[in-house]
Amino acid sequence: MSNTFGNIFTLTSFGESHGKAIGGIIDGFPAGIRIDEDFVQNELARRRPGQSALTTGRKEADTVEFLSGIYEGVSTGCPIGFVVWNTNQHSSDYDNMKDVFRPSHADFTYTQKYGIRDHRGGGRSSARETISRVVGGALAKLALKEIGVQITAFTSQVGTLVLDKSYTQYDLRHIEDNPVRCPDPVLARQMEELILRVKGEGDTVGGTVSCIIQGCPVGLGEPAFGKLHAALGNAMLSINAAKGFEYGQGFGSMELRGSQQNDVFYNENGHIALHTNRSGGIQGGISNGEDIYFRVAFKPVATILMEQPTVDKEGNETILKARGRHDPCVLPRAVPIVEAMAAMTILDYYLLNKTTRM
Amino acid sequence: MSNTFGNIFTLTSFGESHGKAIGGIIDGFPAGIRIDEDFVQNELARRRPGQSALTTGRKEADTVEFLSGIYEGVSTGCPIGFVVWNTNQHSSDYDNMKDVFRPSHADFTYTQKYGIRDHRGGGRSSARETISRVVGGALAKLALKEIGVQITAFTSQVGTLVLDKSYTQYDLRHIEDNPVRCPDPVLARQMEELILRVKGEGDTVGGTVSCIIQGCPVGLGEPAFGKLHAALGNAMLSINAAKGFEYGQGFGSMELRGSQQNDVFYNENGHIALHTNRSGGIQGGISNGEDIYFRVAFKPVATILMEQPTVDKEGNETILKARGRHDPCVLPRAVPIVEAMAAMTILDYYLLNKTTRM
Amino acid sequence: MSNTFGNIFTLTSFGESHGKAIGGIIDGFPAGIRIDEDFVQNELARRRPGQSALTTGRKEADTVEFLSGIYEGVSTGCPIGFVVWNTNQHSSDYDNMKDVFRPSHADFTYTQKYGIRDHRGGGRSSARETISRVVGGALAKLALKEIGVQITAFTSQVGTLVLDKSYTQYDLRHIEDNPVRCPDPVLARQMEELILRVKGEGDTVGGTVSCIIQGCPVGLGEPAFGKLHAALGNAMLSINAAKGFEYGQGFGSMELRGSQQNDVFYNENGHIALHTNRSGGIQGGISNGEDIYFRVAFKPVATILMEQPTVDKEGNETILKARGRHDPCVLPRAVPIVEAMAAMTILDYYLLNKTTRM
Amino acid sequence: MSNTFGNIFTLTSFGESHGKAIGGIIDGFPAGIRIDEDFVQNELARRRPGQSALTTGRKEADTVEFLSGIYEGVSTGCPIGFVVWNTNQHSSDYDNMKDVFRPSHADFTYTQKYGIRDHRGGGRSSARETISRVVGGALAKLALKEIGVQITAFTSQVGTLVLDKSYTQYDLRHIEDNPVRCPDPVLARQMEELILRVKGEGDTVGGTVSCIIQGCPVGLGEPAFGKLHAALGNAMLSINAAKGFEYGQGFGSMELRGSQQNDVFYNENGHIALHTNRSGGIQGGISNGEDIYFRVAFKPVATILMEQPTVDKEGNETILKARGRHDPCVLPRAVPIVEAMAAMTILDYYLLNKTTRM
Repeated sequence: MSNTFGNIFTLTSFGESHGKAIGGIIDGFPAGIRIDEDFVQNELARRRPGQSALTTGRKEADTVEFLSGIYEGVSTGCPIGFVVWNTNQHSSDYDNMKDVFRPSHADFTYTQKYGIRDHRGGGRSSARETISRVVGGALAKLALKEIGVQITAFTSQVGTLVLDKSYTQYDLRHIEDNPVRCPDPVLARQMEELILRVKGEGDTVGGTVSCIIQGCPVGLGEPAFGKLHAALGNAMLSINAAKGFEYGQGFGSMELRGSQQNDVFYNENGHIALHTNRSGGIQGGISNGEDIYFRVAFKPVATILMEQPTVDKEGNETILKARGRHDPCVLPRAVPIVEAMAAMTILDYYLLNKTTRM
Repeated sequence: MSNTFGNIFTLTSFGESHGKAIGGIIDGFPAGIRIDEDFVQNELARRRPGQSALTTGRKEADTVEFLSGIYEGVSTGCPIGFVVWNTNQHSSDYDNMKDVFRPSHADFTYTQKYGIRDHRGGGRSSARETISRVVGGALAKLALKEIGVQITAFTSQVGTLVLDKSYTQYDLRHIEDNPVRCPDPVLARQMEELILRVKGEGDTVGGTVSCIIQGCPVGLGEPAFGKLHAALGNAMLSINAAKGFEYGQGFGSMELRGSQQNDVFYNENGHIALHTNRSGGIQGGISNGEDIYFRVAFKPVATILMEQPTVDKEGNETILKARGRHDPCVLPRAVPIVEAMAAMTILDYYLLNKTTRM
Repeated sequence: MSNTFGNIFTLTSFGESHGKAIGGIIDGFPAGIRIDEDFVQNELARRRPGQSALTTGRKEADTVEFLSGIYEGVSTGCPIGFVVWNTNQHSSDYDNMKDVFRPSHADFTYTQKYGIRDHRGGGRSSARETISRVVGGALAKLALKEIGVQITAFTSQVGTLVLDKSYTQYDLRHIEDNPVRCPDPVLARQMEELILRVKGEGDTVGGTVSCIIQGCPVGLGEPAFGKLHAALGNAMLSINAAKGFEYGQGFGSMELRGSQQNDVFYNENGHIALHTNRSGGIQGGISNGEDIYFRVAFKPVATILMEQPTVDKEGNETILKARGRHDPCVLPRAVPIVEAMAAMTILDYYLLNKTTRM
Repeated sequence: MSNTFGNIFTLTSFGESHGKAIGGIIDGFPAGIRIDEDFVQNELARRRPGQSALTTGRKEADTVEFLSGIYEGVSTGCPIGFVVWNTNQHSSDYDNMKDVFRPSHADFTYTQKYGIRDHRGGGRSSARETISRVVGGALAKLALKEIGVQITAFTSQVGTLVLDKSYTQYDLRHIEDNPVRCPDPVLARQMEELILRVKGEGDTVGGTVSCIIQGCPVGLGEPAFGKLHAALGNAMLSINAAKGFEYGQGFGSMELRGSQQNDVFYNENGHIALHTNRSGGIQGGISNGEDIYFRVAFKPVATILMEQPTVDKEGNETILKARGRHDPCVLPRAVPIVEAMAAMTILDYYLLNKTTRM
C-alpha cells in the first residue's frame, strides 16, 4: 500500500538506486489514449541527472521500456508495466556508508524499521525512485491533454532568492530556457550562481517549487477527507526533501482579514466569474475552474561533500565524508517531479469525479 | 472513500450542520482499550462553540452517544458507531443563502459537483463535521496513551502576531489556561484582543496552529507514498480553512545550507542520539523517535458579518449579508481538531507498522 | 477496513445484536437519486424476524432512521448515515452463554482474536448485522432502477428439496407469495413443511438461494483481481452461514465438454446475441449484457434448541442448551440479504466502470 | 485497483500473453525473509505449459527476474518488482481472431468495455497472467513457512471422475507423483486418460481443485466484510475459468441438520479441541486453528480446437477454428495457482491480524 499512489488511477513503484531497475505499474489508466513515448522520454530527460552543471554529474540514460498495457501505440485499459534499467551505479562509492548513518538521511530510520537496509546509493530512499513518478506523470499529462488541462511548475525560490511576483506576470513558456527552471531570467541567473557557489563549497541549498494547474474542470475533489488540496499536499510531501506545502494564499493568509481574502463572484457576460483567485482554484476542497496554484518547500539535500560527525550501527562515533556525485540543489530537477505528482493527482480525481452521479 | 480517513484505524464520518446528527464509525480500533467517555466528552468541549467570547455564540451540547464496539467500558475490536445529535440549529438563518453563493465558500463548488446542495449552515462543508474527528481523535489518544504518545497543539499565530520562540521554551501544560490556546500568556492576551477587535468589525482573521507529538516510537511511516509527514499533511489539509502545512524547518529550510540543517548523530551514554531536531522527528518519511512537530496555516473564516457582493444560482448579482453566529477566528477551536487528526494518523501508522515483519 | 464493503459505493456498518443500535454509513452514493423511504422500510420488512411461522418469533420493528446525505428526499452525494435502534433484546437469554463457546459459532474465534467478546445475542457476529446491508442494498436498488437493473433472489433449495428447473421457467413475480420465497408453489409448500418439522425438533436446516440480475449493462467488472463474479462471490460469502458460491454452470461445469459449454454468438437482426447463457452473464470477469445468475449455499443455523456438549472459557466441559428465539432455517430471510449484496456490488461496479475512459 | 490483490501484502500484476513480459510488484512483504529463488522458480515450473502431455505443447522457460526489494538474498521490506519475459509467442496463430469474438471468451466483453483489445493470445485475459500470482504465492509461502503454515492443493475432480474420500485419507506428499496432481494414483490414471481422450477430440474438460491449509494460526479473518472464507473465495474466483467456490461442507451442508453439522468442542488434555471439522477451519469468518479446506470449480477451457460458429466485430457470422497450443484441461496447472492465491490470502490476513491489539 505504501508504494501505491492514487485511488482510481494508480502508480505502484519499485526499485532502489543501485538495484537492477526502477519501474512501476500504472493501473486505472483510461483506455484509448495515444501514448507518445517521445514525450515520456522527454519528461525523463527533464528529471535526469547530468543535464546541467547545476545537477549531479552522474550520467544516466534513464530510458523507459513499456512492457504492457499499450497496443499499437494506444492504451488498452490494462495495467501498464514499465522499467528503467539502472546502468551507471558506482556502488563502491557507498562502501564507507554501509554501517554508518548519514545525518538527516533515511539510513537510521530504515534500519530501525526494517532491520535491514540496502545502503547502496540510498537504496529505496534515493531520489532515483522518482523516475517512476515522472513516467506516471507523463502518461497522466497525455490523458489530461485530451480535456485541456495544462500543468506547469517552476523554481520560485533558491536559498533566500525569491520570485516575488505572481505567476500571472510571467510567460511560463520560458521556464525551460534556463537550467534553474525559473521564469524570471535575471533571478534565474542569480539562482544559478548561488547553486554553483554552494556546490563549490561542497554544501547544498534548498528552495521552493511553484506549480500552476490550468484548465482544470470544476468539481474535482471529494469533501471531508478527499479534498483536492489535501490530495495535492499529500502528493507533494511524498517527494524526497519536501518540507512544506501551501496553496492559494497559504501561510500568507493570516496577513489579510476575511473581507480582504474572500474571492467575490460576479456575472461576466452571463457566466459566473470571480474577481480574484486568492483561494487558489479550490473551494471547500473542490476545484472551482480557476487556476490551481501551490508551492512546495524543499530542504537542502542532506548529502554534503563535507566531513560530518556521525555514528555507525553500533553507536561508535565516526567522521563521514560522502563520496559520489550528488545534487547541490534539488530544485531544478524537482520541477518535473512536482508536475508529475500534480498530473497524477488531477487525473485520479477527474476519474473519481465521474462516479458522482449515475 | 472520501469520507473515510485512515488505512488500518479508520474514521468514516457523516452528517451535515443542520441535519439530524453528526456521527461516524471508527473501525480498526484495537481491542482491549478502556474507553474513558468523560475524556471524549471533554475533548468535544474543547471544540464546542460558545466556550468563550472568542468563538461563535452558538450553544451546542455536543454530547456523544456510542452505539457499538464498546462492551463493559472496553473496546471489543468491533466497529464503534457514534452520534452527536444536532439540537441548536437555526436553519432559517440560512434562508437568504439558499440560492446564493457565499464568497470563498463551498456553495458554488458543491452545487456544480453534485447538482444539489443542503445549504443550511453550510451542510456537509460546515466545520460542524469536525465533531466526528474529535471523537475519533479522542479514542486514538486513549490508545496512544498506552504506548506513551502525547500530542499537544497550540495557537502559534493570529494575524501577524507570531509566537517566535521554539515550543521547547514553553510549558505546554498552560495552553488551556487562556481562550486562545497559546502557551505565551502575554501574546495570548494580544491575540485575544485582536480577535475581539476583528469580531467587532464583523470581520475574520487567520493564523497558525503548531503541534508537537512526543514519545512517538521509531519506525512509523511508509516510504515512497506513505511518508509519515505526507500523511500528517494530508490529515491537516483536510481540516476546513487549512491552507498550508510544514514540518521541521518547513518553509524556513531554504535559509540554511545543508551543512547547517543536518541533524548530527552522536553517542549519548551508549545510545544513538541527535544534537538537533531540525528534521522534525521524521527522516525519509519515518519517525526517528525525536519530537515530531509541524505547523498548519488557517485562512480567515470566509463567513463575515459584512455586506459582500455575490451572485445567485442564476448568475444574478446580489448583496449578501450573513446572519447567524460565526467564529471570527477558527484558531482556538482548531487546536483540538489538529490534535485529533494527528492522533488518528499516528495510531493508524503505529498499527500499520506492526505488519513490517513476521 | 473489515466493516466496509465496496470500492466506490461503500457501506460501512456497525452494531451488535444487543447493543443500542445497528447502523451504517453509505458513501459514494450517486447524487440526485430520489430516496423512497417506504421502499427501504419494505426491504427491511422482508428481512425482519417474526414475519412468518418459519422464522424466529422475535418481534423487531427495525425502523430505519436516516441521519444525513438526503435533502428534501433526494441524495446529495454526501455520506448517508443511518441507524436502526435495537428494541427487543432479551439479553438475559444469553446469560448462560457468557463464558461458554457455542458449537460452530463465532464465540471461540472472537474470544481468541480480540481477547474480549460481547456475548449477548452473538454480538457483532449476529445475523442482525445484516440490517445495514439491507438498507445499503435498498438504496443501491433505487439507483440501479434508474438504469433498468432488476435483481431477484429466491429460495432454490431447503435440505434436499431442490428447485431443479431453470429460473427462466418460473414467473419470478410470485416469489413473495409464499413464506419460503420459492417460485414453485408446490415445492414451496414442501419446503415450508420441512422447516416446520425441523423447527419442531429444535433443529435447523440449510439450503440455497439463487439470484438473477437482469438488465445489467455490458462492461461491468475489472479483469484480474476485480472480476465481477469474484466480487459477487466475496459479497455472498460475507453473509452469515454462507458456505459456497457458484455462478453460471458452476460446479456443474465439469459435466460438460468445452464444446457443449461454450455460448455461441450469432447475429440477431443486426445485433450480436448469444444462443445460450451458460456463462451466467459474465465472460472474462466482465458482464456481457445477459442475465447474471448465481447460487449461494447456506449451512443450517448453528444455534439449535437441543442440548449440546461444549466447553467454557476455562476449557471445562459442559452442556449447553440455547434459549431464546432462533431461526430454524436462514433461507427465507436470506433472500433479501442476497439481493442487497448483489445490488451493492452491481452499483459499485457500475460506478467504477465509468472511470474506464476519459 | 483491479490489478492489485490483497490489503497489507499486495500483488499488483501486469502483462499480456503476447506482450513483452508478465510481471508484478509485491508490496507489504515482511522484511527479513530469506528468498529462495530456486523455490520460486520451481513453483513456476509447476505452472509452466509443456510440463506433460496433459498440457499445452507451448514451451516457455518462464524464468523470473527479481528487480528490487531483495538485498543479499533477504527481503528488505521494500517493494519487490519482478518480470518474466515472454519468449515463445506465436502471435500469428491469433491473426484469424483479431476481429472475431471467441465463444465464452473475454474477447467480446473486453472490446465492449475498453473499445480496444490486444487480441494476441487473449491479451490480458490469458492464463499467462497467473505467472505473477505464482511468483507472489511462492514468496508468501516462504514467509508462511516461518510460522509453520503449509498449503497443499490437488486435483479432486476431472469431468465426472471425483475423488470422493476426505483429504485426510491420502498422503498428500504424493500429489506431484502424477501429471494430474491427484493424490489417488488409480483415479489419477483415469483422469489422465480422460484428459488425453478429450484432447484428442480437440475438446476440453473441467474439474475441481481442493486445497488444504494446515497450521494456520487462530484469529485470521475480519468479521463482516473481511471474512477469511470470503477472501479465499474472492481469491479463487479471480482465477481464470473458476466458476464456483465452497469451503467446509459447502454445497453439501444442506444435507445435514444443524445438530449433525455442528462441530463440538471438548477438552483434550487441558486444551480446547474439536471432535470434527465440518466448518472447514473457519468460524464466524475467523480461523479456528483447524485445517482450512475448500474446493474450486473450473469450467472446461473455452478455447477448443473444433470449428465453432461465431460473429466478428461487425456482427458478421463466421466460423472460427482456433489454432495454436491450448490446454485440454486447466486442472493440473491450476493446482499451483490455487495454492498461490491461498498463500497470498493467508499471509495478508496474518499481517492484518497483527493490528488487532496495541
